[in-house]
Amino acid sequence: MAGSKFGNILQITTWGESHGAALGVVIDGCPAGLTLNSSDIQPYLDRRKPGRTKISTPRREADEVEILSGIFEGRTTGTPISMLVRNTSQHSADYSEIAGYYRPGHADYTFDEKFGFRDYRGGGRSSGRETIGRVAAGAVAARLLSEFHICVTAYTKSIGPVSIDMSHFDRDAILTTPTCMPDLQASAQAEQYLADCMAAYDSAGGVIECVIDGVPAGLGDPVFEKLDANLSKALMSIGAVKAVEIGDGTEAASLRGSQNNDAFRMKGGKVVKATNHAGGILGGISDGSRIILRAYVKPTPSIFSPQQTVNQAGEDIEISIKGRHDPVIVPRAVVVVEAMSALTIADALLMNAGAKLENLKKIYP
Amino acid sequence: MAGSKFGNILQITTWGESHGAALGVVIDGCPAGLTLNSSDIQPYLDRRKPGRTKISTPRREADEVEILSGIFEGRTTGTPISMLVRNTSQHSADYSEIAGYYRPGHADYTFDEKFGFRDYRGGGRSSGRETIGRVAAGAVAARLLSEFHICVTAYTKSIGPVSIDMSHFDRDAILTTPTCMPDLQASAQAEQYLADCMAAYDSAGGVIECVIDGVPAGLGDPVFEKLDANLSKALMSIGAVKAVEIGDGTEAASLRGSQNNDAFRMKGGKVVKATNHAGGILGGISDGSRIILRAYVKPTPSIFSPQQTVNQAGEDIEISIKGRHDPVIVPRAVVVVEAMSALTIADALLMNAGAKLENLKKIYP
Amino acid sequence: MAGSKFGNILQITTWGESHGAALGVVIDGCPAGLTLNSSDIQPYLDRRKPGRTKISTPRREADEVEILSGIFEGRTTGTPISMLVRNTSQHSADYSEIAGYYRPGHADYTFDEKFGFRDYRGGGRSSGRETIGRVAAGAVAARLLSEFHICVTAYTKSIGPVSIDMSHFDRDAILTTPTCMPDLQASAQAEQYLADCMAAYDSAGGVIECVIDGVPAGLGDPVFEKLDANLSKALMSIGAVKAVEIGDGTEAASLRGSQNNDAFRMKGGKVVKATNHAGGILGGISDGSRIILRAYVKPTPSIFSPQQTVNQAGEDIEISIKGRHDPVIVPRAVVVVEAMSALTIADALLMNAGAKLENLKKIYP
Amino acid sequence: MAGSKFGNILQITTWGESHGAALGVVIDGCPAGLTLNSSDIQPYLDRRKPGRTKISTPRREADEVEILSGIFEGRTTGTPISMLVRNTSQHSADYSEIAGYYRPGHADYTFDEKFGFRDYRGGGRSSGRETIGRVAAGAVAARLLSEFHICVTAYTKSIGPVSIDMSHFDRDAILTTPTCMPDLQASAQAEQYLADCMAAYDSAGGVIECVIDGVPAGLGDPVFEKLDANLSKALMSIGAVKAVEIGDGTEAASLRGSQNNDAFRMKGGKVVKATNHAGGILGGISDGSRIILRAYVKPTPSIFSPQQTVNQAGEDIEISIKGRHDPVIVPRAVVVVEAMSALTIADALLMNAGAKLENLKKIYP
Repeated sequence: MAGSKFGNILQITTWGESHGAALGVVIDGCPAGLTLNSSDIQPYLDRRKPGRTKISTPRREADEVEILSGIFEGRTTGTPISMLVRNTSQHSADYSEIAGYYRPGHADYTFDEKFGFRDYRGGGRSSGRETIGRVAAGAVAARLLSEFHICVTAYTKSIGPVSIDMSHFDRDAILTTPTCMPDLQASAQAEQYLADCMAAYDSAGGVIECVIDGVPAGLGDPVFEKLDANLSKALMSIGAVKAVEIGDGTEAASLRGSQNNDAFRMKGGKVVKATNHAGGILGGISDGSRIILRAYVKPTPSIFSPQQTVNQAGEDIEISIKGRHDPVIVPRAVVVVEAMSALTIADALLMNAGAKLENLKKIYP
Repeated sequence: MAGSKFGNILQITTWGESHGAALGVVIDGCPAGLTLNSSDIQPYLDRRKPGRTKISTPRREADEVEILSGIFEGRTTGTPISMLVRNTSQHSADYSEIAGYYRPGHADYTFDEKFGFRDYRGGGRSSGRETIGRVAAGAVAARLLSEFHICVTAYTKSIGPVSIDMSHFDRDAILTTPTCMPDLQASAQAEQYLADCMAAYDSAGGVIECVIDGVPAGLGDPVFEKLDANLSKALMSIGAVKAVEIGDGTEAASLRGSQNNDAFRMKGGKVVKATNHAGGILGGISDGSRIILRAYVKPTPSIFSPQQTVNQAGEDIEISIKGRHDPVIVPRAVVVVEAMSALTIADALLMNAGAKLENLKKIYP
Repeated sequence: MAGSKFGNILQITTWGESHGAALGVVIDGCPAGLTLNSSDIQPYLDRRKPGRTKISTPRREADEVEILSGIFEGRTTGTPISMLVRNTSQHSADYSEIAGYYRPGHADYTFDEKFGFRDYRGGGRSSGRETIGRVAAGAVAARLLSEFHICVTAYTKSIGPVSIDMSHFDRDAILTTPTCMPDLQASAQAEQYLADCMAAYDSAGGVIECVIDGVPAGLGDPVFEKLDANLSKALMSIGAVKAVEIGDGTEAASLRGSQNNDAFRMKGGKVVKATNHAGGILGGISDGSRIILRAYVKPTPSIFSPQQTVNQAGEDIEISIKGRHDPVIVPRAVVVVEAMSALTIADALLMNAGAKLENLKKIYP
Repeated sequence: MAGSKFGNILQITTWGESHGAALGVVIDGCPAGLTLNSSDIQPYLDRRKPGRTKISTPRREADEVEILSGIFEGRTTGTPISMLVRNTSQHSADYSEIAGYYRPGHADYTFDEKFGFRDYRGGGRSSGRETIGRVAAGAVAARLLSEFHICVTAYTKSIGPVSIDMSHFDRDAILTTPTCMPDLQASAQAEQYLADCMAAYDSAGGVIECVIDGVPAGLGDPVFEKLDANLSKALMSIGAVKAVEIGDGTEAASLRGSQNNDAFRMKGGKVVKATNHAGGILGGISDGSRIILRAYVKPTPSIFSPQQTVNQAGEDIEISIKGRHDPVIVPRAVVVVEAMSALTIADALLMNAGAKLENLKKIYP
């Protein structure tokens, strides 16, 4: 069963393995007439590139996007946009040892059980490099959303025990700190925490927050295609994410109704909410206020300390993983969260176009 | 855009409004040859029925399922199974007042924004009664899974500040306590907490846990159709759910890799995991251990204390909601979580059938 | 795998067997705000009803539609529209004999091979009664299309050797002749031909033509979702249809390019075509001229003369089918062709809403 | 709306324009463990390549396939197979003139109406080169089907007035004649006919027949996913196809039931049919006999004789098309018909895997 497609109307299909020839994505369903070129996409890919800081793997990949179709004279044509990134820094030898055993916390065992064998080089299809296609497509979605003044912003909220202080919020720091934290002080603390983890041959997890501004009220659906249900799937489909929440999320469960309900008020002739515990979505449909999501990311499973596992011969063994691994997944996953959120919102925007007869009459007068 | 369909191969489409003539579901893609009758389904519907306890709305509905198609001589035929439940206890007059304003925490405003108007009677399509179709379909999925010795069990883990003690775990209590807690002592405490909430014209939230036993390793997919991504969407599509987690979930984010990784070990000639922080899913694919999920449910938005809101004339007003409402959604949502989880696992089972050539050769020798 | 769903955005799921409790359809994705009631639907169902003329089975079914959801105060709400028709004239005993053997030209054998067993009563799911759901849904699609001045008209073009003469075209006759031919003279001849077939214990086939007026240029897609590809699937999915053609269809294969190309011309400030060999679709996309389709329908397989077949015990036998059967399927399939065409065009209209950025800007200014 | 995806479980997404950087396809859902390499695919692409004979355009393209993902150590991994073909022989200048007007019989006008503008170079996405992705994917499907002894064979049945004589059937000639006719004598006559067309600055159409052997009984579905409905869509989605038929097709409409029904008989302990008017499909499900399809192809719309049309300024003009064009589309479309048929059958094979409980029990014992 095809499992590499995401979206209903704006559909993407990603492909590629960590150590194959290339990775990429095909975007099908992007509206015609959107100005678009590779400079809209490359900056997103650069944000997920390895080798930029001491807290990311020293592996270096150029990760340059090539757009192969779907654009003519600088605008989308309405036909599929195919993009690829060549793999350039493959050291398959690094991985030959892991062919024979199952790394704890990885998909090695489950791939073998599902498919009968696996491309063990660098995790194959379950590698973080799989997200290249998502990020390239997410950049297109973000470009489309910008036409409607919708802006998606993700950042690191916490790494291990270190959380940002929202009163220090510094948007620029998302792109300049190695942690992608919008708080320089917290970022420095997190770097220190990660240095400690690395010294202990260990790794850390953390939380990514995503805020989406400018979404008009009315996107989403009342039942299975709820906007929060789709965002939840979008984020949980990112490797290493173990929990997703909207608005107050887990905390809502311990509040009372009188605390959790957001009052409606008139402001400047418009309906607004006095608070936003709901995180911008009511009954699965956007309510016009900021959408707020959080993804909880587990610690990097590849750690250098010894671990117990089994090999394909069915023997208990002890292993020590080598190679090049990020001590924390969070900073490089920030742009992936942003990409998946942008794709989900853009798809909802398109899905909503025919929700009422009066919309259609604007198009077919 | 169609938003009432769930599933890839085992597809369900639910329909119906709180105060319409009936609600129901069509299940398309159920394999032929499964013994099935209404006694497999009615007990699930009875678990979500209102009016059974003092902590649920006194509204009484028979909620008797009628199977209209897809079964012949006691077995599924492989064609669509259509089931419906007639509405019998509609008091539309109760709801006439709310036609003119937007209840905080409800979908009234967002429906109006999306569709231009709404069926305001009892929440229409966003009513909890919409889950009747899900539960009826989930019962069929559970019946199918039982053929493969897969068992899905959900229960209330906490209500407000009261959590169950796993050392008291009493499976029978799920079906006998009004809270659906598998812990008689915690249930009694939770009932007291809910009585306090009701006395204060307020409501409570809580957490539902779901465990799935017997899932073979290998179900799910490496990228967008990850088993946890689909379970996440399944649970987040239930009204009032604000967060979903798998295994250690949010806590994984603050653990180190050495704490969070589950070691593989050989046991009785089989690969097992020494711990289960992952919650039974690695890289989006089941690993053969118990799958563990949690859904965080917000407090019932319909509370009897005064609230601020706006009316359709665009005026700030104060309202006091009347009618019949549960002080907590959690107990009646337990069977919905179970149903959605069963549907997701059953779909994954079917999706996986063609994952490898050797499976197909067993079918087409 | 679910096989009872049709459409991408306007999705229908039909359900029900010939001799089950009821048959029906769920329409998901119909835009909100369309005025609709059962009087829009019943006339379509009446057109496919048996027992109206001497050339249709004397079996009588009321076939009264009940709308169960999706409409509030006379308008569609944007949520699923569920409709059902109860079966009232089942004589299961009539069919008990056919449980044991395979009727030539029917799906008995293939159902057994696919599903392991079958609901043999009246053909079960492969009965012509399955089209009740299609026709009810098609009536809704036609109602939606009428808002955009799009009109779908199907009629019988030929029965056996008798074809209509387009110079006699009489639109009213479609609804008044037992043959659904828009030519009174041809209809009388066809009735005579059918009387001869019946006297010979035999049956006839024929051709249904469908014309669609008012479709704006631009609907459809360049590759797999070509408008003609979807219409082709729509019509070929009707039982007994063995060929489908667009415009000149099969004849185009023997023409030269200079004969088959339609010249473009300006007329009243608009681009029009001087001829319409293409049948209104170029490159899979509507060109603004009339869409013309034809479905070729095989003769009724249930004939009363003796036939050779095998039974489930694997023995060669000779059978004589009894019961109530139409000597020709065509007249009752006319409204089914109209319904499937309307559903396809309505879906294309919705799919096209987001085809270009300028459309979306009209909706989200 | 995404329109470049085909298939339910075995899904392909094609991309690319005639004069873009490359064209390609992503196959998602191919089972793991299939031995596959580029030598399985290149021969199919070579069959659709231009420039091989005097009746195809002298444009020369290498059309060499590059497989970028989804294969490891010579076997499919169950993850997406991405393939691309670089464009090498683009002369965009040839096409600059056509940017300003609408070629009769082409999609120029309809693209402009749908998308607001178009990539006019060589037809852009509506070029015959779009089929490269289909053919590459079809080769993979054919490779998969060969594991189950299913064989798809298409050939030219007629060109203009020249039809093959089935008593001369010569399978090898399909690959060796420029017409792809399996009849050397007819092929020579067709070549002469095409020479006449070219001398008259005109073009020809024709008919492609496709036979599929080895399909087990039971594939397909009773309602919308009928095997013939999906084959019909598959073939009608190929540019220039104007009619599709199964078995006796259009002729069935003028037969009587006693002539058209195929008797079942026992033969060697198996159920067989004495005749095959149905073309191997009954009630939408394969019956175990040969599947027979026909696609009717219109004459090449690009002809060199003068034609009337309009330009984008809205003026009536006369044009003479220049450039490199095949006088007949049929021979190069033969392998496309084969590819689309193979994809449809392979998808049906996968869809059928979970049709009955006993199949699933073979996989999950």
